[in-house]
Amino acid sequence: MEIKPIAYYHGPLGEKFGTPRQAGLVPDLAGVVEFCDGFEPAMLDGLEGFDYVWLIWGFSLNRPSDVVAEGPFDGVASKVRPPRLGGNERMGVFATRSPYRPNPLGLSSVRLGRIDAAAGCLEVLGADLVDGTPIYDIKPYVEYADSHPGVRSGFADEAPGKALNVVWEDPFMRDETLEAILSLDPRPAYQDDPSRIYGLSFKGKNIRFLVEGDVLTVLGC
Amino acid sequence: MEIKPIAYYHGPLGEKFGTPRQAGLVPDLAGVVEFCDGFEPAMLDGLEGFDYVWLIWGFSLNRPSDVVAEGPFDGVASKVRPPRLGGNERMGVFATRSPYRPNPLGLSSVRLGRIDAAAGCLEVLGADLVDGTPIYDIKPYVEYADSHPGVRSGFADEAPGKALNVVWEDPFMRDETLEAILSLDPRPAYQDDPSRIYGLSFKGKNIRFLVEGDVLTVLGC
Repeated sequence: MEIKPIAYYHGPLGEKFGTPRQAGLVPDLAGVVEFCDGFEPAMLDGLEGFDYVWLIWGFSLNRPSDVVAEGPFDGVASKVRPPRLGGNERMGVFATRSPYRPNPLGLSSVRLGRIDAAAGCLEVLGADLVDGTPIYDIKPYVEYADSHPGVRSGFADEAPGKALNVVWEDPFMRDETLEAILSLDPRPAYQDDPSRIYGLSFKGKNIRFLVEGDVLTVLGC
Repeated sequence: MEIKPIAYYHGPLGEKFGTPRQAGLVPDLAGVVEFCDGFEPAMLDGLEGFDYVWLIWGFSLNRPSDVVAEGPFDGVASKVRPPRLGGNERMGVFATRSPYRPNPLGLSSVRLGRIDAAAGCLEVLGADLVDGTPIYDIKPYVEYADSHPGVRSGFADEAPGKALNVVWEDPFMRDETLEAILSLDPRPAYQDDPSRIYGLSFKGKNIRFLVEGDVLTVLGC
């Protein structure tokens, strides 16, 4: 089946590094879904009655595969290393939300902000998406069908909490959303080098920081 | 983006008529997800820790469009009539779970039953799918990211309840799953003709019934 983007996400995060690993981890992270040409404002009538929507989107930053895919599983690793397990343990691809899956589709429930139907824009909060991500479908979140509180969620049974305390060398740079993102610890699980300076793309700026123990220091941009 | 089925759903319902309109409405409705060639049993490692999974699937029974689609919105009606609103009121397509949407992708959370990785089969419960539906992705249901109890869900704020009492002319035909399906009232919202005999495909049989007031009588098959 051929699917086509209906919209693109625009948000402050310019690359995968630093982008939250699930929706809702940074609840106030605001972005905008901008619909493509051909969109009609009436397509959103009634959406104002819903608190959340589903986005079905594409993992557009996956590295291209060397394998010419004939079947759906060609070139797909059966097992992946979820960051939640420290990058050591491997899990079946269908037991994870890994980007490297047979059809690179992502799924995120996001809080609805302002709806500007005339402009073809939806504000969404808490998205785990990189700026420019293509969106293939938007559906209302229907609580009775979609919400299952208390169910077992395997290795992801609890939300990852705040992992680091963030210190700003320049207190005037402080940004609450960026602080929430950094406090989740964007580093790959296996890295712990206090002298290493990391760079993260936020609102078009390259934010530089280092981590020693449980303290992350933002150096500048 | 080109996406390919990774699996097909097999269940008792052979056509759209009678198939529950959302996942979970008939919680014990059992079906099987059968993976396609190329599947590896290791792809399911770790899934046993999850109670629910997401299925992203195709509305494969949509009538083909007369419109040659260039853009994603070509040939798509901006507004649809959800059955929940009696078929009279119209809503924006993105405020509904209608099959007739720019990319005909469906989304269902289903309870996981028995996992037979070696055979490439997953038992799932509560699916709102017709037998033979293609499945494009399976993801674990992660409670902290996916479950939002108590949120507003617009015109679908409450699950549709049991609408009809089911009477079996032949008590030996009685089937609890079929009774739960029929009690939801599979008729189109605008039909109320007590003399009309309906047929529904269940486990390869054509089940005949009629409805008078709030009583549905199963005549036979």
